[in-house]
Amino acid sequence: MNHFEYKNPTKIIFGQNKIAELAKEIPAKEKVLILYGGGSIKSNGIYDQVKIALAEFDVMEFGGIPPNPEYSVLMNALEFIQSNEITFLLAVGGGSVIDGTKFLSAAALYDGKSPWNILTSRKPVLKAMPFASVLTLPATGSEMNSGAVVTRKETKEKLAMSGPALFPQFSILDPQVIKSIPERQIANGLADAFTHVLEQYLTYPTDALLQDRFAESILQTLIEVSPKIMKDPSDYKAASNFMWSCTMALNGLISQGVPSDWAVHAMGHELTALFGIDHARTLAVIAPSHYKYNMATKKEKLAQYAERIFNITEGNIEEKALAGIDATEAFFHTLGIKTKLSSYTKDFEGTAEVISKRFTERGWLGIGERGSLNPTDVAKIVEMTY
Amino acid sequence: MNHFEYKNPTKIIFGQNKIAELAKEIPAKEKVLILYGGGSIKSNGIYDQVKIALAEFDVMEFGGIPPNPEYSVLMNALEFIQSNEITFLLAVGGGSVIDGTKFLSAAALYDGKSPWNILTSRKPVLKAMPFASVLTLPATGSEMNSGAVVTRKETKEKLAMSGPALFPQFSILDPQVIKSIPERQIANGLADAFTHVLEQYLTYPTDALLQDRFAESILQTLIEVSPKIMKDPSDYKAASNFMWSCTMALNGLISQGVPSDWAVHAMGHELTALFGIDHARTLAVIAPSHYKYNMATKKEKLAQYAERIFNITEGNIEEKALAGIDATEAFFHTLGIKTKLSSYTKDFEGTAEVISKRFTERGWLGIGERGSLNPTDVAKIVEMTY
Repeated sequence: MNHFEYKNPTKIIFGQNKIAELAKEIPAKEKVLILYGGGSIKSNGIYDQVKIALAEFDVMEFGGIPPNPEYSVLMNALEFIQSNEITFLLAVGGGSVIDGTKFLSAAALYDGKSPWNILTSRKPVLKAMPFASVLTLPATGSEMNSGAVVTRKETKEKLAMSGPALFPQFSILDPQVIKSIPERQIANGLADAFTHVLEQYLTYPTDALLQDRFAESILQTLIEVSPKIMKDPSDYKAASNFMWSCTMALNGLISQGVPSDWAVHAMGHELTALFGIDHARTLAVIAPSHYKYNMATKKEKLAQYAERIFNITEGNIEEKALAGIDATEAFFHTLGIKTKLSSYTKDFEGTAEVISKRFTERGWLGIGERGSLNPTDVAKIVEMTY
Repeated sequence: MNHFEYKNPTKIIFGQNKIAELAKEIPAKEKVLILYGGGSIKSNGIYDQVKIALAEFDVMEFGGIPPNPEYSVLMNALEFIQSNEITFLLAVGGGSVIDGTKFLSAAALYDGKSPWNILTSRKPVLKAMPFASVLTLPATGSEMNSGAVVTRKETKEKLAMSGPALFPQFSILDPQVIKSIPERQIANGLADAFTHVLEQYLTYPTDALLQDRFAESILQTLIEVSPKIMKDPSDYKAASNFMWSCTMALNGLISQGVPSDWAVHAMGHELTALFGIDHARTLAVIAPSHYKYNMATKKEKLAQYAERIFNITEGNIEEKALAGIDATEAFFHTLGIKTKLSSYTKDFEGTAEVISKRFTERGWLGIGERGSLNPTDVAKIVEMTY
């Protein structure tokens, strides 16, 4: 097991009708800005629940944060925060709204020149305005971690930030919110959380027996609940397990003491930036090719994954590993998620070169758990996804 | 899944030679009291590592905290803390030293009459002097939770306390400390952590699929590493998995959204108070009888446990459950731990009545996950352990 430092101070408030407890968690003196996305919270009742819970507070709101939170929109929100002397941010939404709120919490206290530098500098964020979340879409784990990803349309970039100041003060997880999520987004949430686990698990063995089993526990649970929640999102039992699995998939716990990959995300982000493909679907496109391409260095963990998750016991280590990759692709297909880039765009030719060139320009010369995948490898993997 | 609130702000610093990082974690102005037990840290080098790491600090020390931290000794430590104007407590030891330190951190800021009332009032502790730990004996999970147990010889009592102020600021976990732990104590640590998981897992199903799998992951890992760590405590791979499993067994995570039992501990504590039997061994004595006695209400989870942990697939639900209990007893025996009270004392006759009477006097009229075990049930369970 590798050495590690682990601290996660976010308070999770989980269960039916917990949004009503919002007021207990925010200091009374705060001037609160509610941030949300496209407005679905107004039709599904969550907006009303939040407003009622915060009736005694000085509250303003900023809607319209798009999926893959867009820098220019966030800059408008930042101006709003500053001109209205907001002191507490409350994200009501999914990963995009929470990630956008994290960026704003850092940007609001940033003393550098352009807030974009928070993303390009890749320095940990140590100072941020206090914020919290009401999660409306299980998927990214942003509600209990200190990471965020922001997109900038004008440069077609999607960059990550993180730091100890970016943990939400608290997050409210009411599995009842899932009943109003469209099937497509539930499928995305399942695939996203599943791939988060793979990024922290399909690397190489470090004798981290417990972390491996925790990772497998999340994968098994996502597989177990996925047909139930796809069929009936008002199934509270399935919804609560889906929601908690998504949070645990990326709250830092399963990555302690083990290597992490994140190459699937690095490549996937480019597909979203280039073609606007849903984040989770880009992961499902990249993952199978990535694991096949890296068979030599990942086969031990791939074979363990095949055995423990899909009960694949036949064949040698490579055969099990390959069968595990096929089973992964089949799992994505059960969610209605296609795993070839050509299923999403006709303009896929040349994508490998574009992404490879971007990685070179950014100095991303070695990605993956060993830092060994150079832009040429990236091009080959992306080409395998066509 | 039941609703829950979860927050665990303790920072874990895990790995080889991490004690050297102590100074980075304690504010420079603090006046530090190092608390320890019988002095084994002086012979195994841990004391020296701590002293070197804190060379620049104003440090005092208080040794001699006994196993099952004794109230009268702690009252001496409290007097020492107050007369020396200590501001930060550093427990260097196992669960007893950390629990004693937790009591002291609460007692140092307690404004009631007698600090004993912290234990008898059963109110959550909201105010405590900051403290941290260097863990020398994996077992209790005290290094990453907010609970503690204190013993009082004069009244033969062993009482628990907890509260959000009782999380350590940080805990340093260096698996290398395990190489100098006597075999008996390693066995105790394994049995203690194993039973902690059982208390949070062998109750009744609440469709908490992920929590169940996490609990099973810890049990499987403890079983996997136990022969290795018993044979060779300097086996770093086994030691690191043993250590992290003990922490995860009782840091609050696996109990979220599920019922908890803790009747095994309630009864076990009395056996320690009455006969001085090692804490972990009292759990191994009580557990099999407790689960047999409560077969009717626990059989679903017992059967799942038997299947998933011991691969018991034959028989109906009760038969699997019983086989699971037998396998548990057999696991304790592999650790050299006896599971009958008569193996520890000749004076076992009448114990059932004594414990039952104590529970009645304390008003503990319904224990276990359903609050349904009354003092008569307790007497019957304890009698089954003879």
